[in-house]
Amino acid sequence: MNKRLTIALDAMGGDHGPDVVLPAALRVLSKRKDIDLLLVGDQEVIEAALLKLKVAPGAQLQIQHASQQVDMDELPSKALRFKKDSSMRVAIDMVKDGRAHACVSSGNTGALMATARYVLKTLPGIDRPAICTSLPTMTGHTWMLDLGANIESSPEHLLQFALMGTELAKAVDNNSNPSVGLLNIGAEEMKGNETVRGAGVLLSGSLLNYAGFIEGDDVYGGKVDVVVCDGFIGNIALKTGEGLAKMISHFIRREFSRNILTRLAGLVALPVLKSFRQKIDPRRYNGASLLGLRGTVIKSHGSADELAFANAIEVAAVVVRQQVPEHIREQLQVVVGERKVV
Amino acid sequence: MNKRLTIALDAMGGDHGPDVVLPAALRVLSKRKDIDLLLVGDQEVIEAALLKLKVAPGAQLQIQHASQQVDMDELPSKALRFKKDSSMRVAIDMVKDGRAHACVSSGNTGALMATARYVLKTLPGIDRPAICTSLPTMTGHTWMLDLGANIESSPEHLLQFALMGTELAKAVDNNSNPSVGLLNIGAEEMKGNETVRGAGVLLSGSLLNYAGFIEGDDVYGGKVDVVVCDGFIGNIALKTGEGLAKMISHFIRREFSRNILTRLAGLVALPVLKSFRQKIDPRRYNGASLLGLRGTVIKSHGSADELAFANAIEVAAVVVRQQVPEHIREQLQVVVGERKVV
Repeated sequence: MNKRLTIALDAMGGDHGPDVVLPAALRVLSKRKDIDLLLVGDQEVIEAALLKLKVAPGAQLQIQHASQQVDMDELPSKALRFKKDSSMRVAIDMVKDGRAHACVSSGNTGALMATARYVLKTLPGIDRPAICTSLPTMTGHTWMLDLGANIESSPEHLLQFALMGTELAKAVDNNSNPSVGLLNIGAEEMKGNETVRGAGVLLSGSLLNYAGFIEGDDVYGGKVDVVVCDGFIGNIALKTGEGLAKMISHFIRREFSRNILTRLAGLVALPVLKSFRQKIDPRRYNGASLLGLRGTVIKSHGSADELAFANAIEVAAVVVRQQVPEHIREQLQVVVGERKVV
Repeated sequence: MNKRLTIALDAMGGDHGPDVVLPAALRVLSKRKDIDLLLVGDQEVIEAALLKLKVAPGAQLQIQHASQQVDMDELPSKALRFKKDSSMRVAIDMVKDGRAHACVSSGNTGALMATARYVLKTLPGIDRPAICTSLPTMTGHTWMLDLGANIESSPEHLLQFALMGTELAKAVDNNSNPSVGLLNIGAEEMKGNETVRGAGVLLSGSLLNYAGFIEGDDVYGGKVDVVVCDGFIGNIALKTGEGLAKMISHFIRREFSRNILTRLAGLVALPVLKSFRQKIDPRRYNGASLLGLRGTVIKSHGSADELAFANAIEVAAVVVRQQVPEHIREQLQVVVGERKVV
């Protein structure tokens, strides 16, 4: 466990590129002595940005030049074909080559997924990688996948997602038997579409700790440790929640700034509201794992700020240290070998 | 517009039955002189409950006996077959017979939908009814459908939902040209599954005010007046949001009750928090319309309280007064006739 970790950062990705990635890297390095970071991107741009921050590259913070960058709205197929020297691609290549243990990118999700899948390949027994993140719940947190890597999934895919989410929860939370719920529109067995009902049958016959169907309100209710759904639904549910949280915090701010009295009340309530906000701060949950690959790739939110991106780097470190891809690989052999459920 | 309205209430439905429906009915009657309410259900039970409330039936509040009731977890097919004298069925029958202009039920959603569809039939050109409700947004409110009446929808169905939602928004909001967004996982044209892309093509060629794909966070962001999606996704997105809102309000309460200082801060902030909570109070948005039927049926949340159920009765009154089913019927003829897009 004392092995040093090297993490490659796509320094040009996301809405803010080096302006966020560099300060985030420095924030992590100020606390962690066991991590080396590689800033992948346009060398001149990165050097200039470092100069502005009055920092020089060193053993813990190196630059890896990459001449291109993937645009946020670029088609994944085009990025894959024409951006072979992009900061994203080079960062993933470094994971493939063993020069880095993991990479982190705030870039174009579709391109990141396509490139990671092409370069690193999926684990044997995994058809499709999935995006998995933790979310705060009433009772702690839960892991949810897939959040948008796949737009249509078969029951077998949902079973694979369940297995991968289970391994992530086991490794990161030190939870030996995480419960798995299938997101559906009702808890009764006859509810839902064919895919989710089929997945329910597969999960019931698997070695996983399957807790049955759950409904949308159970996600944040914290009913299960792992929430499984297809990427279309997961993405929409997650983003709808993001929008709702934004609206609520907008209304809270507006109510407190209505007049002099409410402003005073706001001043008194401020520390309490801050502590509450910290609790559900999405930045603390930034850093989604692309599971099912032969390597560790972490997707940061495109609009991540310094704190959020630093969190994504920490997620990468945990996933590597806890050997999540290796555990998924082993577990696939157990499940496939013993029960033939995949 | 001075015509009196008669609304049949499924007095036995929901988690609380007459304990909520009766007080809600009295609340509405205390304010509205243009509405007569029919309490449908077990006569003895209703009479006893009225007695407890020290109210006698009268011209504005009559009882219609029904000997059965549909359980909350009963299979829709069984309810349809074996509960022909249920409070839910009789209330819907009264709409069919013209003895009531609308009915409101907190009962089993699946059974309500199946019974309404069987008894009232869909409008010509509508394959499937949809459940539609309004949701608060950053800028006002939006109408979202389908929220769970259908688990799989074709592009044509989504187009029909868009038309029905548009008519509801026009009628209730007095908005002559409501914008319609299709819920998807990205705003770009190539994103999403075949169904949503196909619906995008149909909507682009329709007479509706189609605003393109929207993402989950745009729902509460208030980007469009009508949000269209299939019922599986709509139900999950809505309920995930409900769970998130519950979690947020749980955390706010907990932070304010942490110690004596935070309790004091809470006292000061209370009026502001109350006014905020009222803004997003789900009870104020209770009452979803079953659109596409030859009659008005309003679904109340199963756990609705007095205020929430009263709101659902008001929704029924608005939908009838604004002749929403008639407008949908007319509009279907226009759209089908002129452009053949359905």
